[in-house]
Amino acid sequence: MSDKVKVCIVGSGNWGSAIAKIVGANAAKLPQYDERVTMYVYEEMIEGKKLTEIINTTHENVKYLPGHKLPPNVVAVPDIVEAAKDADILIFVVPHQFIRNFCGSLLGKIKPTATAISLIKGFDVAEGGGIDLISHIITRHLKIPCSVLMGANLANEVAEEKFCETTIGCRDMKLAPILRDLFQAHHFRVVVVDDVDAVEVCGALKNIVACGAGFVDGLALGDNTKAAVIRLGLMEMIKFVDIFYPGSKLSTFFESCGVADLITTCYGGRNRRVSEAFVKTGKSIKELEQEMLNGQKLQGPITAEEVNYMLKNKNMENKFPLFTAIHKICTNQLKPADLIDNIRNHPEHMEFHQRN
Amino acid sequence: MSDKVKVCIVGSGNWGSAIAKIVGANAAKLPQYDERVTMYVYEEMIEGKKLTEIINTTHENVKYLPGHKLPPNVVAVPDIVEAAKDADILIFVVPHQFIRNFCGSLLGKIKPTATAISLIKGFDVAEGGGIDLISHIITRHLKIPCSVLMGANLANEVAEEKFCETTIGCRDMKLAPILRDLFQAHHFRVVVVDDVDAVEVCGALKNIVACGAGFVDGLALGDNTKAAVIRLGLMEMIKFVDIFYPGSKLSTFFESCGVADLITTCYGGRNRRVSEAFVKTGKSIKELEQEMLNGQKLQGPITAEEVNYMLKNKNMENKFPLFTAIHKICTNQLKPADLIDNIRNHPEHMEFHQRN
Repeated sequence: MSDKVKVCIVGSGNWGSAIAKIVGANAAKLPQYDERVTMYVYEEMIEGKKLTEIINTTHENVKYLPGHKLPPNVVAVPDIVEAAKDADILIFVVPHQFIRNFCGSLLGKIKPTATAISLIKGFDVAEGGGIDLISHIITRHLKIPCSVLMGANLANEVAEEKFCETTIGCRDMKLAPILRDLFQAHHFRVVVVDDVDAVEVCGALKNIVACGAGFVDGLALGDNTKAAVIRLGLMEMIKFVDIFYPGSKLSTFFESCGVADLITTCYGGRNRRVSEAFVKTGKSIKELEQEMLNGQKLQGPITAEEVNYMLKNKNMENKFPLFTAIHKICTNQLKPADLIDNIRNHPEHMEFHQRN
Repeated sequence: MSDKVKVCIVGSGNWGSAIAKIVGANAAKLPQYDERVTMYVYEEMIEGKKLTEIINTTHENVKYLPGHKLPPNVVAVPDIVEAAKDADILIFVVPHQFIRNFCGSLLGKIKPTATAISLIKGFDVAEGGGIDLISHIITRHLKIPCSVLMGANLANEVAEEKFCETTIGCRDMKLAPILRDLFQAHHFRVVVVDDVDAVEVCGALKNIVACGAGFVDGLALGDNTKAAVIRLGLMEMIKFVDIFYPGSKLSTFFESCGVADLITTCYGGRNRRVSEAFVKTGKSIKELEQEMLNGQKLQGPITAEEVNYMLKNKNMENKFPLFTAIHKICTNQLKPADLIDNIRNHPEHMEFHQRN
């Protein structure tokens, strides 16, 4: 038996395949990792051939990341238990709605000493409403620690090896070196912080703010207003984490998972784009999802609804006027043109600041 | 003698005139201010008429803010001493290269109890090189305290009453209410912090980062890379303030003067635009200033040079690889294409973060 750290990637979509390029290359190069990296691939038939066989012979995920070669030591495995059973590090990168099922399949079948890291953006809905963090679900179901990796990381740009940064949130900093070295590349720069929940929550909340940025674009309110909405969104993100996941540090919001991912999402990104169209066309979010996203759901409005449920429960909607207004606009309780009137007397403007 | 606070605006350019709309309206409306607001206007002849006379009869600064009415209680005065001598609050909003001259004219001619607030962005060069803050120059020359007002505030959008935020940095928080109420409007939301130097320094350093963002655009490196460069720029802004103006708070960088102004400048703004053209055309900054800015100087490269002087002096260029690379690119010591190679091993990526 070797002491080398075995790695399994659970998921093989666009982001999973992009990250497999980096993880596979590092596992092949660095002595601390077992060279063979398993990648759980949901089996599909592509022009009469199994996707796993295509990946294992051509080393290309022709469906989800065409045009990029995966390292040959990344082995596609169609059985999730087979892929994961020997792994010391489990990288979860599947659509968030499937995570409970995958955890169900893996329970009791993985190494009890394994550690997980989630690359999944977005919340899950808790029983009875509100938010459940994906990393919490993984830890609860599999009884292993779960770190997270989030940042301004559009999958295709990462696959093209364009320079970017990412943030790993890791509760047990003893794990920091082994996780960082697995993901760090010449073009993919990793910062590890111990603020796991804040890192994960940023990745979901930014989509709400991006809807606000899209409304501002649709209303043609200009650069100053857009900057103000993005900033107020960031302040509400910080306050939300402070209330619901206390103990986080302000500095975490300066990492790639915070301000950088927020900026990218508010200037590029589908939430901004669809929200702009929402204002300009007067169509519903549902219609626009059909037209612009092939029926895929837009994350921002869903997250805004989950967040609103939590704020309402705590009677705190007035402390989060931007999140609240965005939710109301997405659900036609408020006109987009009334967005700004709802944030003119933002709590951020109500006091003199002598914070630390 | 009334106890009402008298206000003088020193300057009447685009930004000075936009702010005169707000300040004049507040002085007319609020009981604590003297209604009459003087505005020092550099006298010019416009089609045979004096600019001060045009402003005082038509209430429009036809040269610098055409199409907007100033409140009639804003009185244009061509003599700076006459304009300023009775003022309790002096609002400085002139091009930064003139500030020493204006201070010279005003020395001994103003109320010794007056307080100043600077809306001037950009540094002045200290004797022997390096940076001199405009607010420090005002305090040193006039021997009165000087606050600052900075934010994501494009003058024309402010004049059009589009919603935005701004930050006042004010050393003596007893002044906070009287300053805030003078500038606050329905569309212009003020946050006061006590971190004066950080607020002012942000307003200058952001222009360096915007050059970096422009290079990334010119090189077509994509959204992830641009977000990474902006974020690393923000981290260098924070570190620069920490080293050269110690005692600032991290939270100040989340205000409008920090992250919001930075975003606006890196997505809109002339520094970004000229820097993009610098990469795409291969022309020098000087040539582009002639072509794109009617010969006006671009702030970013100048500030980058002043900052580089300070970093070199302290042997700290390697702690600021982005600022350093941008300076070298602007002065043709480095090719734009080499920007990213200079920040791959940024100090931000070199350690595990457990900051507070």
